[in-house]
Amino acid sequence: MAQQHLDPTDHPTAGVTTGEALGGYLRAQATEFLRALRLHRESGGSGGGAPARAYPGAGEGGAEESGGAARALRRSARRISGSLHTFRPLLDTAWSEEIRPELAWLSGTLGLEHAYEARLERLLLALHRLSGSTAVPAQAVGAAVGGGPAPGAAPERGNLTVGAAKAGALLDRQLTLARTRAHSTALQALGSSRFHAVADKIALLASEVPLTPAAPTTDLRPLAGAAGERLTDAVAALPLVTAGHPYNAEALVHGLSPDPSPHPQDTPWHQVRLLLRLHRYAREVLHGPESPVDVRLLAAGQALDRHRDASEAAGAAAQAARTPRIAPATAYALGVLHADQRHEVEAARFAFQQSWQKQTVGAP
Amino acid sequence: MAQQHLDPTDHPTAGVTTGEALGGYLRAQATEFLRALRLHRESGGSGGGAPARAYPGAGEGGAEESGGAARALRRSARRISGSLHTFRPLLDTAWSEEIRPELAWLSGTLGLEHAYEARLERLLLALHRLSGSTAVPAQAVGAAVGGGPAPGAAPERGNLTVGAAKAGALLDRQLTLARTRAHSTALQALGSSRFHAVADKIALLASEVPLTPAAPTTDLRPLAGAAGERLTDAVAALPLVTAGHPYNAEALVHGLSPDPSPHPQDTPWHQVRLLLRLHRYAREVLHGPESPVDVRLLAAGQALDRHRDASEAAGAAAQAARTPRIAPATAYALGVLHADQRHEVEAARFAFQQSWQKQTVGAP
Repeated sequence: MAQQHLDPTDHPTAGVTTGEALGGYLRAQATEFLRALRLHRESGGSGGGAPARAYPGAGEGGAEESGGAARALRRSARRISGSLHTFRPLLDTAWSEEIRPELAWLSGTLGLEHAYEARLERLLLALHRLSGSTAVPAQAVGAAVGGGPAPGAAPERGNLTVGAAKAGALLDRQLTLARTRAHSTALQALGSSRFHAVADKIALLASEVPLTPAAPTTDLRPLAGAAGERLTDAVAALPLVTAGHPYNAEALVHGLSPDPSPHPQDTPWHQVRLLLRLHRYAREVLHGPESPVDVRLLAAGQALDRHRDASEAAGAAAQAARTPRIAPATAYALGVLHADQRHEVEAARFAFQQSWQKQTVGAP
Repeated sequence: MAQQHLDPTDHPTAGVTTGEALGGYLRAQATEFLRALRLHRESGGSGGGAPARAYPGAGEGGAEESGGAARALRRSARRISGSLHTFRPLLDTAWSEEIRPELAWLSGTLGLEHAYEARLERLLLALHRLSGSTAVPAQAVGAAVGGGPAPGAAPERGNLTVGAAKAGALLDRQLTLARTRAHSTALQALGSSRFHAVADKIALLASEVPLTPAAPTTDLRPLAGAAGERLTDAVAALPLVTAGHPYNAEALVHGLSPDPSPHPQDTPWHQVRLLLRLHRYAREVLHGPESPVDVRLLAAGQALDRHRDASEAAGAAAQAARTPRIAPATAYALGVLHADQRHEVEAARFAFQQSWQKQTVGAP
């Protein structure tokens, strides 16, 4: 896909990857998008896997296929949007500025349902781990609600166990509701004229990329390099010395803070996560999407995904604790859970620091 | 103090430290004990620093001196008791078996008040850290109780902050009560005929140590070495591989467990703490109490002290959460606090593992 000239003397951009490769990459991603959309429509178009409880009659296979299709839609939407951002000067400005917010809207809308599902799963798993149980299925949490202390358990200790079960049931209720709403919103989005306009634009992109006249012969490396620099600059601003010191207790520093947004300390890490993604996509454009993945870059990205997931899960636990009229035992369990997830945040920062130490972001 | 012969050929125990040194060590520790007791009586005998709130009229200086005296009493009681244990075969059995439980009783009774005081301080400091505040004095916590949300704070977020303040006030109440009781118990103990009997025995020990006839020429190293081996064996049984892996999340595994004694995993660490202490005292007997401290042994011991303190503080937070009719916000704050202290437990294990790696427990 990359334009490579074997004789480095016969062309001013000999041996380098040019805008031609960007065109190829965008066409390929647009084709992926259209394929995912077709798959989604064929699978019944339930928009990302219906919550089984809300739609008990939905075919499992169809929902799973549709979930995969939604992920594939988001995957190519993110890549198209990211490439338009990194290689902005090489593309028709008006077109680019029109489609980017639409892709962001689409990817955000389609991602929410899965995010709530994953958040609930993470929190329920943590509750089971904290209860010294690894075998209790998710349903057992719901079943235990309101059951009082288990037979044979002393009231004081049974209390907290019921607390964990009640906390799980409360989170299940709140996050399943949020997920169901996100599901409906995604379905509406996919049926909207706004979405059809995006799909039409992507269909055009699959055949013709609106590159500037100079783009096909322009070296892509300076723009890709700039994306790499934005990443390294943002990483340099992170408190990596602290993060590399295990058990620094930084992530929980505002665990009981009166601040309405108690974890501004997470924001620069979230920002690095996005910049790392843009850097990865720029590498894909230069080296082709099939080029071998840099495992260290992958590890760093996974650490930041874990950081984001734990940060949001901790927030959900704190939010659930603000539900009026909950039992003290429920609130206690949510407090333990919140702190546990904040330590996951800290652990993820440590993991990122460790993988970054080994990392050299050179020329992409 | 150690019996050293310059010519290694003129004596069967030439060049080694014998039971004579043990006698010297025990006499010195007994003298220390008597000096601390005299200091304690001169300072007014309030038995370890009266809680300021319970005894507002108590002289600060006297209380502090008395606290220091109580610490010194415990310090020598522990050393005498530990040496009797390690070098048991070299001492009159009946005498040794009679005095050891008495010393354990005394040291335990005198230690409780300070333990409750330190636990409260640790928990209040943690609450301030978790509230994103490092400057709030302990009194402010009590003053905030029942005050409702701070002016200008939204109810939802003000809620949890009040939770932290209420949690602090609850812990303050419970641990100050426990401390006051421990203070009275210590005072009663120091005035009891049981204590006077111990003091009389120690006074005798200061002039004459009941060594066995063979003891003065017996090499101390095999018995001291056995103490070192008991330590290394116990350390070998610890899950050090896990502990050396940062953020292993082991310490909180039973954070919400229904088990009435939810942290049996702490017990072997507490045991190693005691064995490390015995090893340290055996080294003092062999090399003299003024011999240079092994800094690595010191670091390992400090990590285990921190492990014990955090473990007990986490237990106190969990215990306070079982108080009937507390507000959900209080319970939430106690849950966060409990998890925070359990992570301190995990951090202490990591610190121990790190210091132990550098450590070689050779011949003492």
